[in-house]
Amino acid sequence: MKIIKDIKEMQNLSKNLKKDKSIGFVATMGFLHEGHLSLAHQAKEQNDVVVMSIFVNPLQFAEGEDFNTYPRDRKRDEKLAEEAGVDILFFPSPEEMYPENFQTHINVEKLTQVLEGASRPLFFKGVTTVVCKLFNAVKPIRAYFGEKDAQQLIVIKKMVEDLNMDVEIVPMPIIREYDELAMSSRNKYLNPEERKSAVSLYKALKKAKQMIDDKIFDTKIIIQNMEKIISSYPFTHIDYISINHISNLKSLKYIEIGKTLISLAVFVGKTRLIDNIWI
Amino acid sequence: MKIIKDIKEMQNLSKNLKKDKSIGFVATMGFLHEGHLSLAHQAKEQNDVVVMSIFVNPLQFAEGEDFNTYPRDRKRDEKLAEEAGVDILFFPSPEEMYPENFQTHINVEKLTQVLEGASRPLFFKGVTTVVCKLFNAVKPIRAYFGEKDAQQLIVIKKMVEDLNMDVEIVPMPIIREYDELAMSSRNKYLNPEERKSAVSLYKALKKAKQMIDDKIFDTKIIIQNMEKIISSYPFTHIDYISINHISNLKSLKYIEIGKTLISLAVFVGKTRLIDNIWI
Repeated sequence: MKIIKDIKEMQNLSKNLKKDKSIGFVATMGFLHEGHLSLAHQAKEQNDVVVMSIFVNPLQFAEGEDFNTYPRDRKRDEKLAEEAGVDILFFPSPEEMYPENFQTHINVEKLTQVLEGASRPLFFKGVTTVVCKLFNAVKPIRAYFGEKDAQQLIVIKKMVEDLNMDVEIVPMPIIREYDELAMSSRNKYLNPEERKSAVSLYKALKKAKQMIDDKIFDTKIIIQNMEKIISSYPFTHIDYISINHISNLKSLKYIEIGKTLISLAVFVGKTRLIDNIWI
Repeated sequence: MKIIKDIKEMQNLSKNLKKDKSIGFVATMGFLHEGHLSLAHQAKEQNDVVVMSIFVNPLQFAEGEDFNTYPRDRKRDEKLAEEAGVDILFFPSPEEMYPENFQTHINVEKLTQVLEGASRPLFFKGVTTVVCKLFNAVKPIRAYFGEKDAQQLIVIKKMVEDLNMDVEIVPMPIIREYDELAMSSRNKYLNPEERKSAVSLYKALKKAKQMIDDKIFDTKIIIQNMEKIISSYPFTHIDYISINHISNLKSLKYIEIGKTLISLAVFVGKTRLIDNIWI
């Protein structure tokens, strides 16, 4: 596995590779888990070359969020990436990505006003900007994103469509722990007691799924039931529970089968966790 | 000369061409003049294939500006482009470029606050967004922009640098009429009396150049002299006269040789004209 830190070097390598090979790309912030690795495996299956980036993107963290404490373990990441079949690990520094006087941002304007965007107003501007930079450096034909960050996936697809970026965005299902907690690098923050409460997110989502199977489509009632489940666990504090149309992210009064995203963000202790299901 | 209207078709053609040919690109809003054609000639000289786009970009016109009346003459443009050696004319429709629910914009944040950006607050957001889309459709190795739109050139270079777009931006000198009025599609708006007053812009710029040659470096004094010249012509109304550092566009108190942009925007009748020199 080749490790590259320089954007120009990555770009030149990709330019050469692209002549006769397909490049699959997995963008990560490192501290890899099974979720990331499933993206790499899928990329390996569909492309000649797999590039993974590891970059904890300062632009998508607001003041007071966990940029400085975000878990990092470079040696472990390198090993896991290599084992997952990654051919090139792209590992730029913040100074390389955002030199002094950096000032250009990409904004997907409507889809970013709700859900994660409402709770974290600068988040998506940081995400779309860095993803555009990474795409321009890596030049992938396909890029793999997990459905765990559902809104991120929808926003990136919209950016790609609106700006005519020539990349196929491949969504990949959420990977879960033994007790169905969605995999996340941030799970590491949870102490053993909080870890037990973290299962409440998916428990609430499964309750929603069961209610819909039972033909209850009123989203207000579904959300009330979800809230009840979350609140029954200690250390939990709901940021939002929301039921939205998957393409425009408008709030839904009634479930639309095949077109509904149920998502939630919950603080467990100080750790903010997210999860979702697509109905 | 091939004419293409569809973004996907342009993209696929460019993808194939790119395998063994260099693509030079000239983005225009049509109503071609010698300025545009000089870009095409230069592109022809440096690349295997020349693509020119003609697209009057609604995103860069504010309410009340001249989007609807902007001069268009497609048949004449096609003939001139072909004569200038353009191989592919890319001619997308506004609906093709901005379908319903389009919502993604690129913003170069600091450089766009002054000069044209101060007078036209949405202008550069529209320019950078459309240029990114055009680059993604055309996939050029080099793109040619005139120094007439000096700030546009500087802003586009910044976007390309910040977002790691793999395109070389080639600046080209201003082409002038017999009486040294800078070529512009908007010159067509001027009636014969206004046309005479339009020469005041370059007259003022030449005065500035002469003062600098005479070792007068105080920008306040230079601007006062320029104002006097413009105001001596009928139908003129100064929007701004400004002396700025070429890389960060900060206002300069004293001329810095090799690093100074002197630019101005003047209404002549109802027509807004711009011009500049690099010192």
